[in-house]
Amino acid sequence: MTSRDGYSWTPQDGLKAGVPTIGAISPPSNVSSSEAVYDVVVIGAGYCGLTAARNCALEGLKVVLLEGRDRIGGRSWSSNIGGYPFEMGGTWVHWGQSNTWREILRYKMQTEVKNSFDFSKGVQHFELNMSGGSATMSHENEDDLVASGLKKFMNVDGAFGRKIVPLPHDTFHVPESKPLDKISALDRINQIASTLTPQERATLEASILLCSGGTLETTSFHEMLHWWAMCGYSYEGWLDKLITWKFKDGQSSFARRFFDEALETKRLTYAFNSAVTKVKDNGSTVTITTRDGRVYRAARAISTVPLNVLKDVVFEPPLSPAKQKALGIGHVNQTVKVHAEISNPALRSWTGITYPHKGVMYAIADGTTPAGNTHIVGFGNQSNHIDPEADIDMTKAAVSSLFCPENYNGQSQQIERLVFHNWSKDEFAKGAWFFSPPGLLSEHLEDMRAPHGNIRFSNSDWALGWRSFIDGAIEEGTRAAMEVRSELQDLKGTRANL
Amino acid sequence: MTSRDGYSWTPQDGLKAGVPTIGAISPPSNVSSSEAVYDVVVIGAGYCGLTAARNCALEGLKVVLLEGRDRIGGRSWSSNIGGYPFEMGGTWVHWGQSNTWREILRYKMQTEVKNSFDFSKGVQHFELNMSGGSATMSHENEDDLVASGLKKFMNVDGAFGRKIVPLPHDTFHVPESKPLDKISALDRINQIASTLTPQERATLEASILLCSGGTLETTSFHEMLHWWAMCGYSYEGWLDKLITWKFKDGQSSFARRFFDEALETKRLTYAFNSAVTKVKDNGSTVTITTRDGRVYRAARAISTVPLNVLKDVVFEPPLSPAKQKALGIGHVNQTVKVHAEISNPALRSWTGITYPHKGVMYAIADGTTPAGNTHIVGFGNQSNHIDPEADIDMTKAAVSSLFCPENYNGQSQQIERLVFHNWSKDEFAKGAWFFSPPGLLSEHLEDMRAPHGNIRFSNSDWALGWRSFIDGAIEEGTRAAMEVRSELQDLKGTRANL
Repeated sequence: MTSRDGYSWTPQDGLKAGVPTIGAISPPSNVSSSEAVYDVVVIGAGYCGLTAARNCALEGLKVVLLEGRDRIGGRSWSSNIGGYPFEMGGTWVHWGQSNTWREILRYKMQTEVKNSFDFSKGVQHFELNMSGGSATMSHENEDDLVASGLKKFMNVDGAFGRKIVPLPHDTFHVPESKPLDKISALDRINQIASTLTPQERATLEASILLCSGGTLETTSFHEMLHWWAMCGYSYEGWLDKLITWKFKDGQSSFARRFFDEALETKRLTYAFNSAVTKVKDNGSTVTITTRDGRVYRAARAISTVPLNVLKDVVFEPPLSPAKQKALGIGHVNQTVKVHAEISNPALRSWTGITYPHKGVMYAIADGTTPAGNTHIVGFGNQSNHIDPEADIDMTKAAVSSLFCPENYNGQSQQIERLVFHNWSKDEFAKGAWFFSPPGLLSEHLEDMRAPHGNIRFSNSDWALGWRSFIDGAIEEGTRAAMEVRSELQDLKGTRANL
Repeated sequence: MTSRDGYSWTPQDGLKAGVPTIGAISPPSNVSSSEAVYDVVVIGAGYCGLTAARNCALEGLKVVLLEGRDRIGGRSWSSNIGGYPFEMGGTWVHWGQSNTWREILRYKMQTEVKNSFDFSKGVQHFELNMSGGSATMSHENEDDLVASGLKKFMNVDGAFGRKIVPLPHDTFHVPESKPLDKISALDRINQIASTLTPQERATLEASILLCSGGTLETTSFHEMLHWWAMCGYSYEGWLDKLITWKFKDGQSSFARRFFDEALETKRLTYAFNSAVTKVKDNGSTVTITTRDGRVYRAARAISTVPLNVLKDVVFEPPLSPAKQKALGIGHVNQTVKVHAEISNPALRSWTGITYPHKGVMYAIADGTTPAGNTHIVGFGNQSNHIDPEADIDMTKAAVSSLFCPENYNGQSQQIERLVFHNWSKDEFAKGAWFFSPPGLLSEHLEDMRAPHGNIRFSNSDWALGWRSFIDGAIEEGTRAAMEVRSELQDLKGTRANL
């Protein structure tokens, strides 16, 4: 199956829209009657919606799942090209991510993961291209450099964040930490600037932008601290949890398990290519209208629409002013993620930063493709933002700028394939994973989480723990399903299918 | 409600068997008819059985839950005395424990935890009483000392275990790690003995015995490495995940959520004081006989009986030779856990090791009781094992030996209360949490996990991840419920309550 989403480019075929994925669902709908009233309608088939729909269906509710795309997974999905998976969005998982790993164990997938890094052979170096000149170094020195900058950045309390964010699932557990959400990453860098070497500062800034996908000015410092706390307050935990373990067969192999399990209950109705335009709650029933004019009715609705897209849906009655304010602010992540196959197998043990960058800034080697090329995955952000499909030569140049020819005897690195998804231009995402600008979370976290009549809002964007991650999506889908099932159980008592 | 389990002692009342707990269930049974055939019988109401019963009931199965005790929780339960919770068994939880934290979030209990440690005032020291003399030091120096010994112990691969146990949910992912399960902790200590100072060796040995509850000879080195890997290969992770966060209202407040949620489905039948003596599988139905002669029938059985108790249950047909061999070996943990209220509030910031010990070896201050006393919790093990109720004066002496009078101006520490559960004498536990002797896991992990006809075996003792922990129990209960529900769903098709 091929999804409309995503792009690939090869020298032979040029740019093509749409890539193959096992996340595309066929047939796209199993709706038999538009007259049914469901127990719950779930809007969105990313991990959050999949979890909510699956749990509700498992626990006896009649569910209808509506999705604007032709595939499951939302901001996390994989394209499988020639037997090799490319992760178009959210990628890495870890057993420190409680909701995700619970599901991985439940689906017995704990050995279906592999390490992105293999430093056992090849160039075995990190390349740092700065405006002041380039350097190559061992991965040990890379780790020392990045860890040193990050630790200075995070160490606001003399305990590397342990005192100020001791219980990260309660984001502002220490009230004194709230002011740290009012300052930006740049503000914090300015506090420690005199202690940073130029190399530390460049790698630190690149590391921050790799997390937030925004700019240093639009990145909340507290949210960076929150990530750090979730990772166990250490650089080793940071690497382990953020960028190490991925699915051998790609994210869509995981997402399919949720969808297939829900389908097997025979209580799941679904419709893809069904973008929701309107959600109306008359107090006892929620009526959902999709772009194609279809109408779905349910006792409850679970909206998993991302923060940056929520203002495109009409709600009746209108959302609370506080929620509207939060979604008016939105999140700042405009990450550019580009996969490149490069005809140099020795790059398998390469990592690199080019900073400031020309569209792609931070990259790692992520595998060896069936053709024997090195697969690298590179990241850009809001600064010097590119739309990779708009000008392929510019995108290729952005990838190439990661490599300084003098490190390779003057040879440039030949690009054999590009694969990417433009999340900024995606009408159902309008950005990549959530990252908060200063003030958003300390002022509006509860507003984003609040229900609205019979409608629940559930998304990784406002999860408590691994906010922004697949794990936060599953956390939120679990929460919504439990709330809805519990409410309907109370309402309906011993109804047969409850 | 008061459970038969546990003991308390005060100067006023002396020794009393049975302590109050919200984990005791009244009425002890809701069985209305012995003629029913259930979908599944779950044997044991610890976290594993509670999870299995809850998940099966939520997903439409008719469940009967049988438990020999008068309470839920198995090897993890809390007694609440005068409004203050004492943890009789498994205590600490962390967001790095995926199955546990998933449930904590699901039950919205993420702010119902608190830190055991409070080093903000009082003595603020660690006391090390060794045969060669006693020492007191700051907690920073304590951390440095314990971390140094542990890191030498774990560093078999030059990467602190990361290379040899890279994916801990797949215990022997690296086949070369299997020989490390054939050696004991003592064997490993002997390899590094020349690098250890006397203080490092004493704290290392005490730390190992705190984990295994056995002796150094009966403790598998690989299983110690496995714990270390689960903790993120660092001493900070070790402390965070093993001994930091506990429930404000005690473990039983968490266990109740599972039980109550299962009950609310109206598909849970249960009987406490109902020890199972026989499990007979005729190929289509499993028949369970309890000590009081009652008989229960179900399509499937989930036994959550611990490894050390399983040989007391008669299975027809008999268990496989391999499984019988594993349960003939058993696990080695004979931890002694004793709570003491001590009339010195300044001890709130105290920790101590006495080694070799006289029954209680490793202790930490764990809270301040309503009376203003310091609550300390101390641990002993198979070496110099005591039965705390057998001789209270000896137990008091064992607690007192943690304090060297010269550190307190010659004042001994007055013991105002003792609370404990003798896990070694408990017929339904025969030991504390699982810890493996050399060879057990590399030879029999799969045997312990294998089903037997229509009977599944599910227990933290053979979990993949947090084996021995509450988390492993939930992992295993989740696995069994999913397997049973999936099988019965396939068998029964679209039956109404599936």
